[in-house]
Amino acid sequence: MEESKGLVKHVLLAKFKDDLPPEKVDEIIKSFANLVNLIDCMKSFHGGKDVSPFNMHEGFTHVFEATFESLEAVNEYAVHPDHVEFADLLRATTEKFIVVDYIPTYFNL
Amino acid sequence: MEESKGLVKHVLLAKFKDDLPPEKVDEIIKSFANLVNLIDCMKSFHGGKDVSPFNMHEGFTHVFEATFESLEAVNEYAVHPDHVEFADLLRATTEKFIVVDYIPTYFNL
Repeated sequence: MEESKGLVKHVLLAKFKDDLPPEKVDEIIKSFANLVNLIDCMKSFHGGKDVSPFNMHEGFTHVFEATFESLEAVNEYAVHPDHVEFADLLRATTEKFIVVDYIPTYFNL
Repeated sequence: MEESKGLVKHVLLAKFKDDLPPEKVDEIIKSFANLVNLIDCMKSFHGGKDVSPFNMHEGFTHVFEATFESLEAVNEYAVHPDHVEFADLLRATTEKFIVVDYIPTYFNL
C-alpha cells in the first residue's frame, strides 16, 4: 500500500508583491526555473499560479516544486551561489513565502 | 522549454496540534490517503513530514499532494461527503493548514 522513495520534494509557496507587473513575475519564475540549468543537484522544477477554489490559500499566489535526490542535495542547493542570488531576488519581490521539504510517501500504488 | 499539462495539483500544508500522539497523526494521514479509494475524481496522493533545512516552514509539520484531472474535479472533491468528513477531522486536529491548487507548468523538459 505504501512506498517511500528517496527523492526530496522542495515546495515553495509565494505571494508576490501586489505592485509587481505580471511580466516581472514571469521573469522571476524563469530565473527560478533556470536554476535547474545552473545547479547540478536540482533535478526538476515546475510551478504555477494558485487557482484554488477553497479560499484557504492565505494569500499565496504561486506554488513551485523542485526535486532533489537527497536531503544532502537540498543543503548543497541552499548554499549554491546561484540559488543564494535567486533567494535575494525572491525576498525582494515577495510579500511572504513558505518553504517546506519532504520525502514523499506514495499511497495506493 | 515549457509545457503545461492539464492535471491540477492540490497541495496542503498542515501543522498538527502539538499534543496529538504520532499514531493519531498516522491514522489521520491514512484517512486522507484513503480518499483516493472513495473519491473517483481524486487520482493520486502522496505526502510526508517536513524535513526542510531552510527554517522557513512557518511551523508547518506536513505536506500532502493530491492530483485531479481538472479544476472541475477539484470542485467535485470539495463537496464530496467523504472529503467533507475528512476536512472536519483535519480542522479538529490541526493548528493551521493552507490549501493551494495549481496547474503546473513544467520547465526544462
